Amino acid sequence: MTDDKRRSDCPINLSLEIFGDKWTLLILRDIFFFENRHFNKFVNLENISTNILTDRLNRLVKHQILIKEKDPKNLSAFVYSLTPRGLELLPTVLEIFYWGANHTPENCAPNHFYKAVKKDKPTVIKRLREKLIQSHNIKITSTL
Amino acid sequence: MTDDKRRSDCPINLSLEIFGDKWTLLILRDIFFFENRHFNKFVNLENISTNILTDRLNRLVKHQILIKEKDPKNLSAFVYSLTPRGLELLPTVLEIFYWGANHTPENCAPNHFYKAVKKDKPTVIKRLREKLIQSHNIKITSTL
Repeated sequence: MTDDKRRSDCPINLSLEIFGDKWTLLILRDIFFFENRHFNKFVNLENISTNILTDRLNRLVKHQILIKEKDPKNLSAFVYSLTPRGLELLPTVLEIFYWGANHTPENCAPNHFYKAVKKDKPTVIKRLREKLIQSHNIKITSTL
Repeated sequence: MTDDKRRSDCPINLSLEIFGDKWTLLILRDIFFFENRHFNKFVNLENISTNILTDRLNRLVKHQILIKEKDPKNLSAFVYSLTPRGLELLPTVLEIFYWGANHTPENCAPNHFYKAVKKDKPTVIKRLREKLIQSHNIKITSTL
């Protein structure tokens, strides 16, 4: 096996091929932290173009990070929900938050949330996870 | 303040503007896990082009994630070292590893390392961190 082949099978490379771009991670941020689950909410993402947004949402559905369904509250719209494997991206996005809160001077991280993460990251993840399982109606069949 | 303005100041957005692309995160992976610190080693990254590699390394230096210095062992070459704030990206990259090891069936994560992360992530981070502080000669002036 060549070095390049080995590298391509690297779990980090395979992960990044799925979600390793700014727009995808911003969509996940909106889902995890802003309770956004609709196309017409995601379009408010930092100057995202609708064709990029469509592409990234489709990729997330294709890779079983999100599920796209008719919104029961508005049948002319679609709602995006996290899958169990999508939910497991929460720690990655939270680490990006924490780095940014510590290392980008101009950031506007909410102080109470930053302090909670700094004090006890696992508890913050657990609470957010439980909230998302409820609101997205995620069926967890096993825990890692 | 508009919603868009608020979002742009988001620590996740600001972080992703620095390192939110596949190539940058693969360079960091190589630094954290493969002890690569030289341009002619990074060129082995998954089919990266040399102009992208040059751009991403320059960006990491510009954003004080890496320092570029003459290599004392080979004065005709340059060596890249982590800064304290670069080192703090280790938990993010480790979370990406862990997600990929759990959720990409074709990945080749080393089993012993995966098991260690699964069992006790904070200890793995602590050990890797100490190793990198030594090998990159990182001057830590404060802990977060």
